[in-house]
Amino acid sequence: MQRGHRRPGSTAALRLSNERAILQDLLTHGPSTQSELARRTRLSNGSVSSIVRSLRGRGVLETSDTVSSGRRATLVTPRVATRRVAVGIDLGRSHIGLVIAKPGRELLAERRVRIPHGTLAEEALGQVRALLTEELRQIDRGDEDIVAVVVSVPGPIDRTTGRVVDGTILPEWVGRSAEDVSEALGLDAEICNDADAGAIAERGWGAASGVDDFLYVKIGTGIGVGVFLAGANYTGAFGIAGEIGHSTVDPGGGHCRCGNRGCLETVASVPVVLQHLSDALGRDVTREELNELAASEHRATVRVIQAAGLALGQSIAMAANTLGPRLVVLGGPLSETGDVLLEAVRGGFSRFAIAPVVEATRVELSTLGEGASARGAATMAFEHGDALAYMAGADEGGLLSGVDIKNR
Amino acid sequence: MQRGHRRPGSTAALRLSNERAILQDLLTHGPSTQSELARRTRLSNGSVSSIVRSLRGRGVLETSDTVSSGRRATLVTPRVATRRVAVGIDLGRSHIGLVIAKPGRELLAERRVRIPHGTLAEEALGQVRALLTEELRQIDRGDEDIVAVVVSVPGPIDRTTGRVVDGTILPEWVGRSAEDVSEALGLDAEICNDADAGAIAERGWGAASGVDDFLYVKIGTGIGVGVFLAGANYTGAFGIAGEIGHSTVDPGGGHCRCGNRGCLETVASVPVVLQHLSDALGRDVTREELNELAASEHRATVRVIQAAGLALGQSIAMAANTLGPRLVVLGGPLSETGDVLLEAVRGGFSRFAIAPVVEATRVELSTLGEGASARGAATMAFEHGDALAYMAGADEGGLLSGVDIKNR
Ligand SMILES: [Zn+2]
Ligand SMILES: [Zn+2]
Repeated sequence: MQRGHRRPGSTAALRLSNERAILQDLLTHGPSTQSELARRTRLSNGSVSSIVRSLRGRGVLETSDTVSSGRRATLVTPRVATRRVAVGIDLGRSHIGLVIAKPGRELLAERRVRIPHGTLAEEALGQVRALLTEELRQIDRGDEDIVAVVVSVPGPIDRTTGRVVDGTILPEWVGRSAEDVSEALGLDAEICNDADAGAIAERGWGAASGVDDFLYVKIGTGIGVGVFLAGANYTGAFGIAGEIGHSTVDPGGGHCRCGNRGCLETVASVPVVLQHLSDALGRDVTREELNELAASEHRATVRVIQAAGLALGQSIAMAANTLGPRLVVLGGPLSETGDVLLEAVRGGFSRFAIAPVVEATRVELSTLGEGASARGAATMAFEHGDALAYMAGADEGGLLSGVDIKNR
Repeated sequence: MQRGHRRPGSTAALRLSNERAILQDLLTHGPSTQSELARRTRLSNGSVSSIVRSLRGRGVLETSDTVSSGRRATLVTPRVATRRVAVGIDLGRSHIGLVIAKPGRELLAERRVRIPHGTLAEEALGQVRALLTEELRQIDRGDEDIVAVVVSVPGPIDRTTGRVVDGTILPEWVGRSAEDVSEALGLDAEICNDADAGAIAERGWGAASGVDDFLYVKIGTGIGVGVFLAGANYTGAFGIAGEIGHSTVDPGGGHCRCGNRGCLETVASVPVVLQHLSDALGRDVTREELNELAASEHRATVRVIQAAGLALGQSIAMAANTLGPRLVVLGGPLSETGDVLLEAVRGGFSRFAIAPVVEATRVELSTLGEGASARGAATMAFEHGDALAYMAGADEGGLLSGVDIKNR
């Protein structure tokens, strides 16, 4: 939630922290004017121009004259090390998503493969490792070109222990930590919650572009929310936030894995929707078929999705009453049923949110679909990795020796 | 949500903004070492010592040598204008609360009076004006000594219009703005939500002291939450947050003024609790009597409060699942029923929050009771007023002439 990039400490440490803020901003947004950098990093124009001058002197970036809003301006272009990449991995219960990206959000690889439901953590990570090696080879890169790896998992992560906590939909993963993942991959990796990763992706590449306060709702086997407040991903006091999957929507309803009855997940998760539809049709329905039936406005399918959407709308309304966001983005597998789901969620939302929230909060579909979490994980890898490691100046060696650049 | 005190703009504007941050911090916390100031304002030690030197030169503060944690340190003491005060007003449907405070959170006056239920806004403000005049006279002050006034009202305030929005429990107040209040009082005043004011008070003077992420639940005629995230009061994208009063706890329950059925307010607000108890005892029960009956563990009273507490615990659990706070503080009139309410809310909370949230989030009673909102409003008056106006240097005149100090 830190705004601006100031920390307590010496003036030298502050300067380094501000340097990193500018480099990371350039990595995320690409070439920018000094004014844009000042606005986004909340540093003064004077600080930005002094830091840019110093980084240019070290060969890390270049400047050129340009015109912005009809006025003369200085365009700052990072001299990125063209081989360096960030890796984002999305681990679900039945899929692996992988994104390899260059600075400036240029995708070099984007893959998605199915794995058997309930695959153990070690096995899944073995497959990730194989997939990563294969994709790196195809783009003529190796492990030595990777600056940072972030792995998104569908469960809450306790910030104090750094471990996936119980109550997740990935029982195979409970208690696993970033260290376990790093060891299995042979690479330093962080782990993050999949809904947080999705939110970060939607803000960077998708429906929430330019929106500071929004909720990204991931509807899959579990249901979780990635929360953006005042322009930053908020993960609570201890790393857990957005867990709306266990809000009660039907007090007398079915039993939930959390022990309560009628939780949102018991009426609106993908497996439950598929089960209801299979019961209605008297045969097994797959996810692919669900999407097709929804697209053709198949009557029973529409009704099953409407019931799920109404409950989702109600739970989202409670979260929106609490947070007053500008936007709600519906993502995850169920969002691929499209407008049928969207209209139903909007209906539930309008009915249950208080009037001023209904009026001020938009509800939209994700524009990234299933790829959101892997892209968000890659974005986090850019933000958490050492920004200097992506720069050409660093590649040439020695220019920054003796300077203590700390990650996060 | 702004952390630190940096804004875009010129270096001179930045310097002024940092000066104000230091002065406001001194007003809130009283005499402090330079290191404490640097830590709390997130400015570098160098910036703090340079600004302190400049302010000392202008007679605004004094410095002295001290020892802190066994090391030599510089203690900074603001030279406050001893006559200057901030005013906080809490306007409920049946009470007026008034606090007059000096810098350093020294209370000069704290009053609470009852007004007839449903008093019109203009009438209520007339009474506030009379009460304020009387209290000022008793402490030998006048309007000219007031630096800022903040009025807390029990309803959401739309940040774009600055007006109390519909859906509030103060129908007499819908559409009123800070300008209306200022005109009625003959003083520049801001308005704020009462639950936000309560949260600010609990963090400054009460149960949430030192806690960055917490929820303050005000349970009165309405039920609202003041949200603190990462050390700042969060009021949503458009000024509305924490409206848990209309979360559904009983889908088939009674009709609510919002048009839905079984909202939290239909089962746990003070009027509903009084009504249930009156029905049970076959006679009218007052708020004072409710508190006495609860204190003596009167069986029917305990049961009525337990039912309300369970529903409160459920709604609070949904909000806590969404935000992962460190602490929940129960405040407002119903919190004066004490441990009976606390135990019931804890019961509902443990039952409905997900396991890691139950484990990490404490639920406690307010330590400020009914006085919280007026104190919080006074604290906001200190934070939003011009810090220099409280300083002795400003009283002496001229020292800061030509300097453009902007409020907020
Ligand atoms: Zn559940
Ligand atoms: Zn309601």
